Order: sequence, then C-alpha cells, then structure tokens
Amino acid sequence: MLRFESDYLEGAHPSIIKKLAETNFEQTPGYGLDPHCEAAAALIKKECGAVNVNVHFLVGGTQANTTVIASILKAHQGVLSSDAGHIAAHESGAIEATGHKVLTLPHKNGKITGRQIFDYCTAHYADPSFEHTVQPGMVYISNSTEYGTVYTKAELTDISAACREHGLYLFMDGARLGYALSSPGSDLTLQDIAELCDVFYIGGTKVGALFGEAIVISNPAIHRDFRYHIKQHGGMLAKGRLLGIQFEALFETGLYWEISKRAVDLAQKLKKAFQEKGYGFYCDSPSNQQFVIMPDEHLKVLSEKYTFNVMEKAGDGTTVARFCTSWATSEEAVEALIHDIEKL
Amino acid sequence: MLRFESDYLEGAHPSIIKKLAETNFEQTPGYGLDPHCEAAAALIKKECGAVNVNVHFLVGGTQANTTVIASILKAHQGVLSSDAGHIAAHESGAIEATGHKVLTLPHKNGKITGRQIFDYCTAHYADPSFEHTVQPGMVYISNSTEYGTVYTKAELTDISAACREHGLYLFMDGARLGYALSSPGSDLTLQDIAELCDVFYIGGTKVGALFGEAIVISNPAIHRDFRYHIKQHGGMLAKGRLLGIQFEALFETGLYWEISKRAVDLAQKLKKAFQEKGYGFYCDSPSNQQFVIMPDEHLKVLSEKYTFNVMEKAGDGTTVARFCTSWATSEEAVEALIHDIEKL
Amino acid sequence: MLRFESDYLEGAHPSIIKKLAETNFEQTPGYGLDPHCEAAAALIKKECGAVNVNVHFLVGGTQANTTVIASILKAHQGVLSSDAGHIAAHESGAIEATGHKVLTLPHKNGKITGRQIFDYCTAHYADPSFEHTVQPGMVYISNSTEYGTVYTKAELTDISAACREHGLYLFMDGARLGYALSSPGSDLTLQDIAELCDVFYIGGTKVGALFGEAIVISNPAIHRDFRYHIKQHGGMLAKGRLLGIQFEALFETGLYWEISKRAVDLAQKLKKAFQEKGYGFYCDSPSNQQFVIMPDEHLKVLSEKYTFNVMEKAGDGTTVARFCTSWATSEEAVEALIHDIEKL
Amino acid sequence: MLRFESDYLEGAHPSIIKKLAETNFEQTPGYGLDPHCEAAAALIKKECGAVNVNVHFLVGGTQANTTVIASILKAHQGVLSSDAGHIAAHESGAIEATGHKVLTLPHKNGKITGRQIFDYCTAHYADPSFEHTVQPGMVYISNSTEYGTVYTKAELTDISAACREHGLYLFMDGARLGYALSSPGSDLTLQDIAELCDVFYIGGTKVGALFGEAIVISNPAIHRDFRYHIKQHGGMLAKGRLLGIQFEALFETGLYWEISKRAVDLAQKLKKAFQEKGYGFYCDSPSNQQFVIMPDEHLKVLSEKYTFNVMEKAGDGTTVARFCTSWATSEEAVEALIHDIEKL
Repeated sequence: MLRFESDYLEGAHPSIIKKLAETNFEQTPGYGLDPHCEAAAALIKKECGAVNVNVHFLVGGTQANTTVIASILKAHQGVLSSDAGHIAAHESGAIEATGHKVLTLPHKNGKITGRQIFDYCTAHYADPSFEHTVQPGMVYISNSTEYGTVYTKAELTDISAACREHGLYLFMDGARLGYALSSPGSDLTLQDIAELCDVFYIGGTKVGALFGEAIVISNPAIHRDFRYHIKQHGGMLAKGRLLGIQFEALFETGLYWEISKRAVDLAQKLKKAFQEKGYGFYCDSPSNQQFVIMPDEHLKVLSEKYTFNVMEKAGDGTTVARFCTSWATSEEAVEALIHDIEKL
Repeated sequence: MLRFESDYLEGAHPSIIKKLAETNFEQTPGYGLDPHCEAAAALIKKECGAVNVNVHFLVGGTQANTTVIASILKAHQGVLSSDAGHIAAHESGAIEATGHKVLTLPHKNGKITGRQIFDYCTAHYADPSFEHTVQPGMVYISNSTEYGTVYTKAELTDISAACREHGLYLFMDGARLGYALSSPGSDLTLQDIAELCDVFYIGGTKVGALFGEAIVISNPAIHRDFRYHIKQHGGMLAKGRLLGIQFEALFETGLYWEISKRAVDLAQKLKKAFQEKGYGFYCDSPSNQQFVIMPDEHLKVLSEKYTFNVMEKAGDGTTVARFCTSWATSEEAVEALIHDIEKL
Repeated sequence: MLRFESDYLEGAHPSIIKKLAETNFEQTPGYGLDPHCEAAAALIKKECGAVNVNVHFLVGGTQANTTVIASILKAHQGVLSSDAGHIAAHESGAIEATGHKVLTLPHKNGKITGRQIFDYCTAHYADPSFEHTVQPGMVYISNSTEYGTVYTKAELTDISAACREHGLYLFMDGARLGYALSSPGSDLTLQDIAELCDVFYIGGTKVGALFGEAIVISNPAIHRDFRYHIKQHGGMLAKGRLLGIQFEALFETGLYWEISKRAVDLAQKLKKAFQEKGYGFYCDSPSNQQFVIMPDEHLKVLSEKYTFNVMEKAGDGTTVARFCTSWATSEEAVEALIHDIEKL
Repeated sequence: MLRFESDYLEGAHPSIIKKLAETNFEQTPGYGLDPHCEAAAALIKKECGAVNVNVHFLVGGTQANTTVIASILKAHQGVLSSDAGHIAAHESGAIEATGHKVLTLPHKNGKITGRQIFDYCTAHYADPSFEHTVQPGMVYISNSTEYGTVYTKAELTDISAACREHGLYLFMDGARLGYALSSPGSDLTLQDIAELCDVFYIGGTKVGALFGEAIVISNPAIHRDFRYHIKQHGGMLAKGRLLGIQFEALFETGLYWEISKRAVDLAQKLKKAFQEKGYGFYCDSPSNQQFVIMPDEHLKVLSEKYTFNVMEKAGDGTTVARFCTSWATSEEAVEALIHDIEKL
C-alpha cells in the first residue's frame, strides 16, 4: 500500500536522525535553554531577515495554536478564524478550553480576506449591545490553508492592515509553511510574514522533522512572558534541545526549502495527471495537498493500492479526495499513482 | 564539566535511537493509532499483569498531569496534592488554567498519607459551609517523590483506601517510576500500582527515552473519552508512533528496569560517599536523587567540576544540594565525583 | 415616550414589592437556606406535579445558563444550541469562558428539532476523527425562543428522545417560560417540561420579579453538588431569601400565570393590529414578542412616541422591529400604539 | 432567637425599600445604562474626591471578586492574597475556575504587608526556574479583613508601593468597607483608597442594601472593556437600575456612613462587655465583627438565646466565636446580649 493520506506518515529526514544520534550523549540544560535551540533560533532569525524576532520551539500544532492564542487574548476576547480553520474545527475545543470563543468567518477555498475582518469588526462596534458579545482580539490564518491554497503578499497585506486598523493581533499557523512558500502560487518570503504578522510558526512536523514547530514572534508585546505560557500548556520539553537539533538540521543548509520544493513539485505533477484525466478539483491548490473530485468507482479502484483522504460527497456519484505529498514521498510512488490514474 | 543537576541531560538510550532510525521510513497512521503504539501498549499491559488496563502515550510530564487531572475532575472539584507536588509548585499554574484548584497537604519528605487525605475530606464535609469551598475530587501523588523518597505498598494501600472511602480518584505521577520501583526502599510492583491507583504513568523522559510518558488507566470510568482530552491538551502527537517505538524499546527486553536499577545503584554509591564524609541529608532517599546538606565552601569547590541543583539554605553556612544520576550517568563520572568528595 | 423595546423595563409586580417590605426585618440564614426559599421551592415543585424535582434560585439568565451548563459538561464536551440561542450569541462568551464550545445548529424561527440533534450526533460519531472534535454533551433550547416562538409537546418530545438516544442532557432556558406556556401556541405544562427535560428554569426577571430565575432539576445526576456550582459562579446570593420571597409571591396565588397571560393577550392584540395594517412578520409569534416587518418611514413615525428594537434590514426599505409586552404593559399604552399604527 | 452570626440577616434599610417602591413603574433601559446608575455613580465619584474614577455596580461579592480578577490577570498570572482571604478559602474555587491560581501569603490578624508582597516578588524573579511557577500579577486585600481588622493609611501606602515596584495591580475587597472606614482604627478615606488602589469596591450587601457592590476603578487601563467582563460573569443585571437606586439611597444623604458608624459603635460596646468579663480575643478588631475566645459552656448558655459563628477550637475548653453587628442590629438586642454576658 502506498500512502498519500497525509504529510506525516514517516519519521524524519535522515539528516535529522543522524544529527540526533551524533548529539545523543551531549549533556545540556533543559527546557529550551541549550546551545542547539540557541543556534536554531539564530538560523531562523537570519531567514526572517530580522534581528528583532524571537523564536521558541514547541512540539506540535495544537499546542502551538493554543499557547499562542491563550497568551495573547484577554478574557473577554475571541479569535477570528476561517470556518475551515484548524482551531475552529479540529482541535477538540482546545481554544475554548482556554476560555475563548473561535469567531468564524466563511472561507473561500480555505482563505479569508482583510475585507471580511474589517467588516466583522465594524459591525461588532456598531452593535449597541456590543459588550454582550465576544470582542475580536486577534486573527488566525493558516498558510497553506486546510485546502492547500496559499496567501499572496497582497492578500496578507490587506489582512494585516485590517488587523492594525482594528487593534487585532495577526497569527499565522504555518504547519505547512514550507509547502506554502515553495509553491508557484506564493510571492511571500519569511521576511514579509515577519513584518505583516505579529506571530507565526514554521512547521516541522509535516516538513521533515520528527515533530516540532518554530514559533516566530515579531511583536515584542507578545513576547514578554511567553515562556510562562509554554510551560503552562505543557509545551516546555524537558529535553528541549531535541527541537533545536531538528531545526538546526532543517535550516543550516537550506534543507527545509529543498524538501518543501520537492514535495510541491511532486504534487503539481500529480495535479497535472488528474487534470489531464479530466477530473475537477474542490479548489485550485498550488501546494502539496490536492483535493480532486473523482467518480466513486475510480476511487474504489485506487484504494486497492493507495491510501488517501475521503473528504465529502460531491454529487453525481463523485467524491472529494485529498492526496498529499511530503518531504518523504518518493518519485516512484508518484509515478506509480500517475500510471494508475491514467489507466482509470 | 560533569553534570548531575538532573536526570534529563542527554538524549536517549542508544537502542531507542537505533529503533527510531530503523523504523524511520515506515508509513503509519497518525495520532497513536499505529502498530508501534499498539505493541508498546501490549507490553505495558503485560507488565501490569492486568489485561484490563488501557495505555496511552503522551509527550511530557506537565501534559500528562494536566490531561489526566482535567479529564477526571468536575468543575467544582480540586485535586489534593502534597505541597511539594510538582502540580502545586512547578507547572506555571497548568492545573488552575484548566479551572481547578490544587488543594495542598503538608508533605513529610515529599510524601503524604492516607490519614491526611481521610482527615481532609472528613473536615471538608463537617464544615457547614462546605459548598463554599472546593470539593476534593482526586488525589495526586508522585513516586518517587520530588525528594526522591518512595511509597511502600502499605502506604499506598492506606492512600488508596482513604480515596475509595471518600470517592476520590487516585493518580500517581510516575515521571521517575523506574527509579522508584528499582529502589531498595520499594516493595511495590506495577501490578500493585495498577490495582491501587485509578491511573498512573510510567515516565520515559527521565528513564531512557528522548521523551514520553505512558499513561496507564485501570479505572474504566476514566478511560472512556480519554482521547478527546489528549487532543484538547495538545498531546496527540501527529507521529504518535515515536512514542510507541520508544516504549517498545524500553519494555521489549526489560531495558527500562535494567537502566533504572543501574542509575539507582550509582546514586546509592554516591549517597554512601556523602555519608562516609559525614554529611547529613534533607531526607533519606533510596532512589536516584540525593539531597545532601553540605558546607557552602565544599559546594563551591565541587561546582568547579560538577553541576548540581542548589535547593535551599540549611543554616550554619550549609546548603541542600541535589545530585541526580540517570540511565546515562557513567560509572566514571560517579567515581570522579566520589573521589572529589573524599578530598573535600 | 412609551416603551416596548423589552420586557424588563420596570421594577416588579406590586405584590412583590409589598412582600419584600413586609418581610424586611425578618432575620434569616443566608445563601438560599431560609424558609422563604424553602416555601417557594415547595410551590414550584407542586406546579411541576413532581415531588422529585429540586429547585434553586439564581439572580439572572446569563448566570443560570452558565451555572447549569458548566455543572453538566465534562471538559471535552460542548453544548448544542440554535445559532440564534442566547448562549451562542449574546453572553459575551460566558460559556466558552467556562471552557466549553457552543455547537450551533441552524434555527428555523428560533427553534431546532430532534432530527437536527440526532443527525448531528450521528455524524459526529461517524467521523473517523471524531475525537479531534468537540463531543456534544447536552442540548440548550429556549422556550419561548429568541423569536417569540414556542415549542409544542410533540416537538419537545422529539428533542427529548433524540437527547436520550445519544446520551445528551436537555436544558430549557425559560427566561420567558411564563409567556411561552400562556401562549395560544403552546400545549405544554410545567409537568411535561419536568418530565422531558433534565433541567430548566422559570424566569422571573422578565415575568414580574425584580430579578430571579428558578432552576428546576429533574435529573438527580445533575442535582448532586449543584450548590457548589452556584457558589463558584457567583450566584449564591447572601440574602438568598430575596429570591424565595419573590417566587413565593409569584406562585402562591397563581400570579405568575395571570400576568403572563395578560401580557400575551396584549401582544396578540398588537399583532392583530399589525396584520390588519398589512405588515408581514419575521415569523409567526404566539407569545409576548412580535417581530414585524415595516417600512422604514413608518418606523420613523412611531419612534417619535414609542421605543422598540430595530433588529435588521429586511429589503425594499423595510426593517424587522421587535415590540414586546410584559406583565407591566398597560392596556392604555397598547391602545395608543394600535391607534397610531392604524393612522400610518 | 436574636441573631449575631452575620451582617446580612435582614433585608435593606427602609429608605431603600421606599425608593424601590417609589421608582417601581419607571421605564428605564437595562444593563446599568439608566439614570439611577448614572446618578449613583456620580455620588460615589464625588465621595472619592476624584473625577477620574469609574463606577460599576455588581450584585454580590464573589461575582465582584471574580469579575475584577479575571478582567485584570493574564493567563499566566495569579493573584496574591492573605491565606485567610475570601478568594483563597471561601468561594468554591471561583478564581481558579477562571484559570488563575490564588497565591497565598500568611496573614497576621487577617492582614498582609507591603514587605511580604515585595519579598514574594523578589523571590519569584530570583528563582532561575521562575517561568515554571505562576507570575504574581495583582494583589487582593480585604478591608475590613475576614477578622474584622482594618488597614491604616501607612499600611496601605506600603502595600501600594510594593505593588507599583513590582508591576502588580492592587485590588481592595470592600464588602465591609463602610464598617472599616467608620472604625476607630481607620485613618483612611475613600479618596486615599482611590489613589492607592487600582480598583476597589464599596459593599452594599452587608451595609444597608438588599444586595449590591459598587466597583470603583481608578486605573484607566483596567476600565477599558470592563463591561464585557461584567456580562461574561453573569453580573450585568437586566434591571441594572435596582443597583443604582440602592446606591443613590445610600449615598445621597450620607446614609452609608451613618449606618456603618452605628453598627461599629454597637460592636465596640459588645467588645467592651466581653473585655470586662475577662475574655480574650482572636485579634483586636476595631470594626463590626468581634472574634472572642470563650469557654465552651458559656457559649452553650448564650446559644439558647443568640446565634453566632463558631470559628475554631482555641484550647483548654474554649472556642473562638464570631459576633457581628450590622446596620440592622438593634440597640435592644445588643443590650440583651451584654446583659446575658455579664450574667455568665
């Protein structure tokens, strides 16, 4: 069985395993205060072209989202998110468990716009009973989105402007940031993101690491006391260096970008094969996730040799299915799948 | 510099690194539903001599404590703990962040007793305003404790009886359970613990793993829906197999017990050296942490070659210092330290 | 200016003021443990035809909703509600502040159905990732609803059955329960409600009292420990008797039903006047709130002499406006308004 | 039976009942935005000698404490309190339910000092693992305290200075503020308190009102958005004017001070009687609560005609008992009690 259902099916890029083995008997202080975390943070700062960002390493996405959001919002505030946003739909109420409502905006292909944010806030304050509803305190977006789409620099600039106009912090979930920025649809750089967002993260779990997300904070108002929040949310790994070591491996020679690009290229190859076969798509994704609409009987045939995600029925005996590539996807697996698509 | 300040200074036992490398390119489902987690759970069930326990794997101690406690308590309940308990003192308010008060009992050498629990509950319900105070809902103990002491079977039986008498769940934090059960002071088995506690965990982070704690639930009332709580608290690792693989390595050939015993033996050797030098101890610890009371000038001399934890002043120019051994401590390092103690 | 914008514009029915004055110098124990609360609870039990319900008195609606919901849900659970439900929209995130997500179902004229609840739960457990989403733990409905509509016995029976099928508790917000049950559209009795719901409340604030809601708990599993929750949520009034005294006045001679019926009759008179003038309605309300669709210029004329609630634009230069009657609305005020409607 | 067990045994001062009756049929907007709340706020501002304070009215003490504390603290912060503080001991975990730890300091006669606060914070930041513990974010004191003692201007100035030194907000629970400031032991004015604290409240429930606490915010950083928090915690009374009307009655002619002084005078008379009989006291209270240490058999005799609070055993067959006077205590009741004390 060749698996395409997600981008976290394997362990880590071999250079990470190698580095973990090499450093295994070093003795270091705990809780992220070791030389590897320091070195990895320096590498990421450099990538951001900004000496003024601060970098922290957390184990996973839910934890990163919860810690950042809970550290920013005041008790009466909520977080604006696309209704397809991971925090709105797929984290077992983790945000609400910290006391905050997720305020949803209808997404279009996974994305929301500066205009939606601006209008929501304007309507909030125009309501004479505004104090009886939750105050929007920040915005959460993901890039790439849950549908594989990516934000352009113009779109992100609009969102950032709407946030600043209404006093909202802007947070980008970058669980798949490598795949987003390596995509032909993106004109953003890490430096742009550091300038336009208050905080974001660079995902490792889905992009070559065993686990780990690098949180980059560019607004100093958020940074003060952030380590208390990491500890409170169970994110302060005793052997914090495990995160530092992995991000060192990913960024000391550009490995992160190299493997991201490779995965996106493979996904685009796959996309082309689906297109040539005449299938439609849930939306046009330029990154490593493809949401293709296929006849149920074709999916049934493919499911004998491949795994993928069944998303939802799409009418007329068709279904939306998600196929992902990742840093670990082999050329051969993609070729095999394309070959079988052509035969359908 | 030779480090004795904690038991989480290095990476993992080499057999774990090896197993991670070997399994690296396997493709498995995520979130703890893979064959490695299944195999590791089966090994642990067997160790517990009980087919009826359920096993889940979390990344770290704060997360394990928070997830278990928040999954058990109702909104008006608190958790009873020694005032030295990790949840009372050293988790940045993680328990309170889930809405629950930590109700403290004065510890003796890190331990609390069944009698203290019984008396607390009796006094609670005897107060005519009991509904104006927090209802005790469960008990948290750690074994070995924050002071290296261990519970005997008689003590744990008493605690368990007090809990059942008053309808409290009993939870044992076993971050250092390997060191506790391998200690000459312990007459407990995993099976005893599974019978006397409702839930406990077997710590990996401090006992040979890169990270990871295996939660063992013997009370089915707690088990139902537990995975929702894991997800909500950010504990559902995308590549959950990383935890399964590590606990397989620790339990398939008895490695966990072997390395625990070795660390305890080294610590007892160290203890003897301190004793022979005439130093006192904060308390008599039979496990891998030693809390010795030394003249400040002696500590200063040792600090040139060794790291350790300075706990608190102990009067007359002396200080309590913590020295830890671990699965990774070398015979040579202990010999060097003993040699330098003798010279003081 | 004659005010029709809400049903909480005045103080209390004069017999309540009188009783407060008469009892003013009695000395009673605090916190709801006094003879007036006891007597009022007995009256309400009798109305419910059920000796097995338990009654508690809280100050207001947000507090009643929050206390009940937080006392029932476990940490991983959410509450299902109409998307127009007060808890979903108008309580400043009070439910989320206790850690729980409000799971919304699209309302029809303010109501939801047993079928919607059943389907939501079925879909939840059919999702292979169900543990990554919030588990539905209870259902919240309001009667009358935020749009003045009322549940029939058949509808409530369906909802109750769906809840029991899926293990959900059923909670009815009865802030306007007097107006609902006195409405020509209702075939429900308090006894039916006590049998079909696990918990509900009888609103006083909007139905004759200065303030106060009587919570009726018919499921004993919810009742145990409920007073802890009242205290925790700031609902345990030191002079709890103030609530008991008011509900005694409302229920010792049937005053509650008498004033409710009177208010509903006045509202229906008003409704008839709007209908005869040819206006449409947002929905057909048989209770004390009328949501009429009127040309903006007509509303402007009325606003010179009357207050009402502007809800939303309804197209073609019209607007939805809410007019409420209450226990305190005078015959004369309604006649004056009808007279002015006819002149429009 | 004559009752001395608390200061909330009766309804309200008759002038309040009268004013409620007189205003009963006024139609006013809800939620604290009515002319009575406005007028009462203006009266209190004037009493504070400060145009820059803001005033809000809440129903009760637990609600006031919870709302203020939850509105101020960030997620990683706790509130420093005396270990006898109401929030530490008697609110069913209300503060923890909002996610925050109550950090306790040992009290002396109910009070804490600026030095204790200063030292706590200094120790917190001196701990190399300070981020693993809860950050102190504010200080809670009560005046008069739970033991009837009162803070002097010098003591409050010290506390205020310690708070400002360490960036903590200072909050005074004034549930019994009338009795505190009317006591011979107090040299504080409302104006002093407004200057030295960031926020405090003037208790109505125990000082002449049916219910109600007037929150006075002198630090504008706390005031912004405060009404959202009131709503979220169920404190926004639909008929908010009920609070405004009561505080108008209490402050338009100095009634609050008059009835407070009278209650304190009666309590001091009682104290003198206890002293002359030779009884000791738990502490020297200059306000309306007296904590006297009496032989158990004497208490038994008194309990036939009087109610009082049994606090704790005091050794040698004696017990600490609390006797309270209030705005409603009659001269005759006190004379009767004194007479019976003399006979013991």
